[in-house]
Amino acid sequence: MEPSWHGRRLDAVTETDGRVTVLAGGVGGARLAHGLDLAGAELTVVVNVADDVELHGLAISPDLDTVTYTLAGLADEERGWGVVGETYAALEALGRLGEDTWFTLGDRDLATHVVRTAALRAGEPLSVVTARLTAALGVRPRVVPVSDDRVATLVDTAAGRLGFQEYFVGRHHADDVVGLVYDGIESARPAPGVIEAVEEADVVMIAPSNPFLSVEPVLGVAGVRAALASTRARRVAVSPIVAGRAIKGPAAQMLASLGHEVSALGIARLYSGLVDVMVVDERDAHLAADVAALGPEVLVTDTVMGGTDGRERLAREILAAVRG
Amino acid sequence: MEPSWHGRRLDAVTETDGRVTVLAGGVGGARLAHGLDLAGAELTVVVNVADDVELHGLAISPDLDTVTYTLAGLADEERGWGVVGETYAALEALGRLGEDTWFTLGDRDLATHVVRTAALRAGEPLSVVTARLTAALGVRPRVVPVSDDRVATLVDTAAGRLGFQEYFVGRHHADDVVGLVYDGIESARPAPGVIEAVEEADVVMIAPSNPFLSVEPVLGVAGVRAALASTRARRVAVSPIVAGRAIKGPAAQMLASLGHEVSALGIARLYSGLVDVMVVDERDAHLAADVAALGPEVLVTDTVMGGTDGRERLAREILAAVRG
Repeated sequence: MEPSWHGRRLDAVTETDGRVTVLAGGVGGARLAHGLDLAGAELTVVVNVADDVELHGLAISPDLDTVTYTLAGLADEERGWGVVGETYAALEALGRLGEDTWFTLGDRDLATHVVRTAALRAGEPLSVVTARLTAALGVRPRVVPVSDDRVATLVDTAAGRLGFQEYFVGRHHADDVVGLVYDGIESARPAPGVIEAVEEADVVMIAPSNPFLSVEPVLGVAGVRAALASTRARRVAVSPIVAGRAIKGPAAQMLASLGHEVSALGIARLYSGLVDVMVVDERDAHLAADVAALGPEVLVTDTVMGGTDGRERLAREILAAVRG
Repeated sequence: MEPSWHGRRLDAVTETDGRVTVLAGGVGGARLAHGLDLAGAELTVVVNVADDVELHGLAISPDLDTVTYTLAGLADEERGWGVVGETYAALEALGRLGEDTWFTLGDRDLATHVVRTAALRAGEPLSVVTARLTAALGVRPRVVPVSDDRVATLVDTAAGRLGFQEYFVGRHHADDVVGLVYDGIESARPAPGVIEAVEEADVVMIAPSNPFLSVEPVLGVAGVRAALASTRARRVAVSPIVAGRAIKGPAAQMLASLGHEVSALGIARLYSGLVDVMVVDERDAHLAADVAALGPEVLVTDTVMGGTDGRERLAREILAAVRG
């Protein structure tokens, strides 16, 4: 199926110059960013930090690391997290020493957390150590945590209020989510460059990440939503829901339990007024008219980014479309 | 060659009850302690901490860990440090992230440092986290750092003053040592139980560890030397020099560069007045009379503790001898 465009026009141009900023969570954001990098975009990835967690005294930033490992070509693509070819000798040893090991930390991944923790303890902001780590791994795009301050997603469920990783990893995101709290978000300041990356980009994309767990704690940091509202960039969101299901993770279940329609239309409603273009999967082509009725132009295409080819193709299609 | 005893009498009894305290550095102390544990002694090992180092933001205690791993049956006996079957994935990753990796940290070993670092940062004293780690690994003897406070051996060489691990690991202890400073030792307090372990033991042993790098920064902590002087325990030192060479490490070179005789007699002179019994290797039997002339009784036997059998044998021989 060819991509179809419900809007002014679908430009065939595939030039990819211009500044692109992606607001990203973990896997979906990482893959879209990777595609844009492969397509040659001048890219900034603003990454959620509300899933960060301290375990074994180590500062762990799963979304930042997923984005970094993916852009560095080190990600375990099959599993969707961690480093490819990873081993778990240290985790086994941690278990032997009496540590709780519900959160799977690989040996290579551990090195990232050790370096980050030492840097943070020495007073280096998260954005600075992130820049250092990505540079060391040869990552070309700028990867920026949305804030150097602590923001922590807390998840309200029938079982009570849970820490994010407890909900997500510890309990396998099986609980119905009835509410979310982004602890610390009121006082969190955007990291240096975040607001400029939104204001001064030619294109800003909301990645196909979980709207509640990944996107909202990015938009909720002071100034980010306002910058997205006022930027002259073309603003695009890619639906993380395809044919009523999430590609990965609990987005579908959360949409339902929080009272939203579990579809690309439900996603479009969440971002209504914030984006100029909605990208909807071809399996949801029948929703395009309803999405367009909300205001945005609609790009219908294959949004499932399996391999690197698929990512680059999607990135090029979106960039071509929004240049229209 | 049968063990020979230059003193009151060599008791044939091989009972091993009674409280034994070993003052230990790394490998030599670990092996003697292991032998004593195998022999059934009620054992406390007081361990040097002046080789501790912080790398990658992690609190590393090589002597404590060598003792712990050896007593837990996890030590890489062939290499003399670290964990047997160790892997180095995290270290490789640390290098990829731009960290200096001259200090070889294994993946399993890293877990120890991660747990210790988190505990220390949370305010737990080193002695408490050490007790927790050794218990988790099923170590029966009590392993106690000589102090919960920081003591750091600094090594004066022709190349200037070096940090201990820089001298020892970084420069492969190749520099001639002309002086030593135990930074912090004046204000370091003995860890809970250390003085009692010396005062109330039936036998106190100075392990065949480096006198300058391992033993002196134990004896130099407030109260330890005085406790050794006044204890009613039988006090034994095992020479780390055999046939003019150190079993391991730079003890021979340091004795020479610091102006001491490189022999069991040189060692006996260092501990003169502090011990009741010197244990000298059978290859140094010809020195026994000169050692005895300094005051102590002398046990001459095979002191090279290759395998676990040799350790237990040596431990039993020493215990039998000192019960005389």
